[in-house]
Amino acid sequence: MLIPSIAPVANAALSESLANAINNKTKPLGSLGRLESLAAQLGLIQGTTQVRIDQPAILVFAGDHGVVAEGVSAYPQDVTWQMVENFLSNGAAINVFARQNNCALHVVDAGVNHHFGTRTGLVDRKVAPGTRNFARTAAMSPEQCATALQHGMDLVRDLPGNVVGFGEMGIGNTTAAAALMHKLTGQALARCVGAGTGLSRDGILHKEQVIAAAVAHHAQVREPLDVLATFGGFEIAMMTGAMLKAAELRKVLLIDGFIVTSALLVAARLQPAIFDYCVFSHTSGEHGHALLLDQLGARPLLDLGLRLGEGTGSALALPLLHAAANFLNEMATFASAQVSERSA
Amino acid sequence: MLIPSIAPVANAALSESLANAINNKTKPLGSLGRLESLAAQLGLIQGTTQVRIDQPAILVFAGDHGVVAEGVSAYPQDVTWQMVENFLSNGAAINVFARQNNCALHVVDAGVNHHFGTRTGLVDRKVAPGTRNFARTAAMSPEQCATALQHGMDLVRDLPGNVVGFGEMGIGNTTAAAALMHKLTGQALARCVGAGTGLSRDGILHKEQVIAAAVAHHAQVREPLDVLATFGGFEIAMMTGAMLKAAELRKVLLIDGFIVTSALLVAARLQPAIFDYCVFSHTSGEHGHALLLDQLGARPLLDLGLRLGEGTGSALALPLLHAAANFLNEMATFASAQVSERSA
Repeated sequence: MLIPSIAPVANAALSESLANAINNKTKPLGSLGRLESLAAQLGLIQGTTQVRIDQPAILVFAGDHGVVAEGVSAYPQDVTWQMVENFLSNGAAINVFARQNNCALHVVDAGVNHHFGTRTGLVDRKVAPGTRNFARTAAMSPEQCATALQHGMDLVRDLPGNVVGFGEMGIGNTTAAAALMHKLTGQALARCVGAGTGLSRDGILHKEQVIAAAVAHHAQVREPLDVLATFGGFEIAMMTGAMLKAAELRKVLLIDGFIVTSALLVAARLQPAIFDYCVFSHTSGEHGHALLLDQLGARPLLDLGLRLGEGTGSALALPLLHAAANFLNEMATFASAQVSERSA
Repeated sequence: MLIPSIAPVANAALSESLANAINNKTKPLGSLGRLESLAAQLGLIQGTTQVRIDQPAILVFAGDHGVVAEGVSAYPQDVTWQMVENFLSNGAAINVFARQNNCALHVVDAGVNHHFGTRTGLVDRKVAPGTRNFARTAAMSPEQCATALQHGMDLVRDLPGNVVGFGEMGIGNTTAAAALMHKLTGQALARCVGAGTGLSRDGILHKEQVIAAAVAHHAQVREPLDVLATFGGFEIAMMTGAMLKAAELRKVLLIDGFIVTSALLVAARLQPAIFDYCVFSHTSGEHGHALLLDQLGARPLLDLGLRLGEGTGSALALPLLHAAANFLNEMATFASAQVSERSA
C-alpha cells in the first residue's frame, strides 16, 4: 500500500503576505490572538491570502473492539451499533452540532459488530465485525489494517470540500488509543489510560493492567503500522488513512479528542508534515489527551472538558475556523477605513 | 435613580429537572463538560428545561476619555470615532463576527468626542463629547453618570431578544477599567494595568503612574457609583446600566473582555445576583483580565488570546451558547433512542 506523500506548507513569501494582510486590518497588532495564527495557517494550507472554508464535512468512523471481552468499558458493546443508529436518526450530539454549523456528516461503519443491512446514510466500509481481542492476539491482520487505511483514503478522495473533521464511535476504543499512545510516545501507561465513558478508579486500574499485559505479550511490535494493527481499531486505522489522504490533498484536518488524536499520532509517525494541516479543536477531559497533545506540540482551540468523541469537538471548533477566514476576507484595512495607525 | 432589582436564579426543583434532562441524553454522564453547566444555567435563567436563544444582540458602546491627555494610549483619540465609522461601514472585526453568527449589532455613541450628525445605524446617546481627565478632576459629574446608567437601562428595555452581548470602543478605556478594578477589588495597580492597544513597557509604567496619582488625588472616593463617576467612561457606565436592566429582565448577559468586565464589576457591587445571568465569553490577553475574572469567580468559555474589545469575544462565544441550548433541546435520550445505559 502506498502511503500518501505530504508536502510541508512552509512558504516564506506567502507567510509575509499573510502577515501583512492580517496586520493591516483595523485592529491593534496581534489582537485577534489565536485567530490570527489560524488564518495564517489556512492561507499556507490553501496557498493563498484569499482563504475559504468550502463544504466542511465530518466523518464519524465506528468500530468495535475485541478487547472489551476483558471488561475495559463502562458500557456494553451493543452501544456502538445503537449509537450508529442514533447518528442515522439524527439524535446524537454530533448530529446536533453538525447541523448547527452547516457541516456535512458522514457515518462510516468501519467494523461494527452488527449487521445493519443497507441503510440510507450509512457508509458501509466494514472490514470485519470488530477487531480481535489484543490481550490475546493482534487486533487486526496486516491485510485488514491495510484495507482500513485504504478505505479511509478513498473516502476522503471522494469528498468535495476543503475541511475534514474527524470523529469516532467505538466501545473500548480509549483502550486501543491508550495502547497506541504508550507504544508510540513511550509515555508511562498510567499517563495514557483514563476513564473512557466513565470507569471507576478500580476500572481504570484494571484497564491499565489489561493493556500492560498485552504490551508485554506483543513486545516485539515497534513499527507504526504494526503497532496500529496490533492494538488499534478499524475506525482508528480508517481515520489514519483518511487523515493522510486529506493532508495530501491540502485539506484542513479538524482533530477531535483522544482517539482521533491517537489516529493522527500513527499518521504523523509515517508523515510528520501532516501537522501543518491539522487544527486541534479541543483538549478532551479524557486523561491522556492533554499529554498526547503536548507530545505532539499541539495547542487546541477549545478547552471545555468535553469527553464525548463523535467529532463533537471538531464541530464546535468549526465556527472559529470560519471566524479566522472571515476576518481575513472581510475586515477593512486601516487604509480602506481611513483609521489612524498607532502613534507610538 | 432606581437601580434594577435582580432575583437570584436558584431553584432546586428546576435544577433537578435540568440535571435529569441533561443526564438522560445519549452520552456518557458529564461528557459535554462546560456545555452542560451552560445549558443548566440557561434553564435556570429562563425558568424552563425548554431553553431558547432568541434574537441575540450585541451592544457596542463607544466613548472617549479625557485621561488620554496624559499619554496613556498607543493610538490617537480620533481612532474612537474612526472605528465607530468603521462599525457603521461593516468593516470591523465585530461586524464580521456578528454577521457570521446571525447576531444583531447596535452601535451606541455613549460619549464620543466627535459630531457624527444623524447617521443610520448609530444610536445617539451621547452624554458629552468625552469624559474629563480623571488625573485632574472626576471623569463625570454624578448627573452625567446617572444619565449614562439610565440610557443603558432604557436601551436594554427596548431590545427584543433574550441574550445581550456587550462590547465597547474607546481609546483610553483600559486606563479607566484598570482604575475601576484597582479601586473596587483592592488589587495592586501593577496587576490591573496592561498594554491596552499596544503600549511599550515604559508606556505601561507611565500609565500606571498616571492612575496611581489620580487614585491618590481622589482618595476619598469609595462607593461603587462614585468610583464609576470618578474613573469610568460614558461607555462603561452605560454598559453597567444596560447589564443591570438585562439581568432584571432575565436575559443572558454575554460578557466580553477587560473593559466590559470592569463595567460588570461595578454592577455586581450594586447587585451581586447579576452573576447568575452572566456567561463569560473569554479570557482576554489584556494583562488585568485573568485576575479580574478570578476575583469574580468567573470561568470563561474561550481563551484565544483576544484583546480587541468591540464585543468580539461575546460574538465568538455565541455558537457555544447555541450548542448548549441545542443539545438540550434536540438530542435523543437513552430511552427514545433505545441505547443501553451503563452496565457498571
